[in-house]
Amino acid sequence: MRTVTYGGAVSLDGFLADLDGSLDWLHFSKDVQDVMTNYWKDVDTILMGRKTYAVAASQGAAGKNTKNAKRRKPRQAAVRTYVFSRTLKSLDDPHVELVAGDAVEFVRDLKRGPGRQICLMGGGELAQSLLGAGLVDQIGLNIHPILLGSGIPTLRDVGRRVKLKLTDCRPLEGGCILANYRVLCSE
Amino acid sequence: MRTVTYGGAVSLDGFLADLDGSLDWLHFSKDVQDVMTNYWKDVDTILMGRKTYAVAASQGAAGKNTKNAKRRKPRQAAVRTYVFSRTLKSLDDPHVELVAGDAVEFVRDLKRGPGRQICLMGGGELAQSLLGAGLVDQIGLNIHPILLGSGIPTLRDVGRRVKLKLTDCRPLEGGCILANYRVLCSE
Repeated sequence: MRTVTYGGAVSLDGFLADLDGSLDWLHFSKDVQDVMTNYWKDVDTILMGRKTYAVAASQGAAGKNTKNAKRRKPRQAAVRTYVFSRTLKSLDDPHVELVAGDAVEFVRDLKRGPGRQICLMGGGELAQSLLGAGLVDQIGLNIHPILLGSGIPTLRDVGRRVKLKLTDCRPLEGGCILANYRVLCSE
Repeated sequence: MRTVTYGGAVSLDGFLADLDGSLDWLHFSKDVQDVMTNYWKDVDTILMGRKTYAVAASQGAAGKNTKNAKRRKPRQAAVRTYVFSRTLKSLDDPHVELVAGDAVEFVRDLKRGPGRQICLMGGGELAQSLLGAGLVDQIGLNIHPILLGSGIPTLRDVGRRVKLKLTDCRPLEGGCILANYRVLCSE
């Protein structure tokens, strides 16, 4: 069955972005680029919530990120992106598909179907639903050496404990820590 | 000047204990014992808040922990423990000293005085005050492979960003990650 991986860059106090979505604290390095290149080659599907899509779309219009997007394009040509929203009626973007129905049911079906790895991008609300439903198989974090104090939490309460198994852990350039986990079970 | 180190075991989602103070998810191992033995040999002062003291005192009365406490006693004979509280009038414990005044001023003076390393034990409220005042020099975490969902947060908002420098990072037995940081500056 296809696996769903959730994660990304996170501050040591657990935020994936500032309250305003700001990511100016992110540290890019050759290490991170290698990790991401290796990760993306197995991914053919991206899941994200409405808020994450809004941030991603706005960043795609910015100079630096547009350049990155262009550079990634050949590798990502076959990637399908699903945006989950109960409020949006349509998306003016031919590269993404809007899912208005139940995210849990949709992802459960998606995992049973054919395809490669599925990347679940934060914000944490969609991740909270899918983790709560036992549909997230792996969590991969790039823990940054900073305390933001407040922001958008990466890992929200799913109402019970979730046990993990550490599968990879190593320091990355810039004082970051790569920490990959397999989701074992929920108590 | 003496350094203050804050930290301890923490869940991947950033809690040092369940909401009821429960620590049944902690993983003890030879690795952890070695790390702690090495850490404690340089410590001669412990700081803790009222709530942490209550938990520590109650655990000291339990069978397993009493045994541990007895085993540690010879090493910790010269350790001074300060409990900070604005509500307690006295403590019926000859081994600890109650500090009713301002924690920040007290610790600032303590750091200027003679002595070895100072261990700041969680709960997070005292740590929040001291970190906010720029009095915490090091953060050392033992990140456990579990999501608790809710609990007592290790790192609370001090109202601004705090930059850190990773000084040590390695996996420990049981899927834990040792992550030590030096506190660099607050923005």
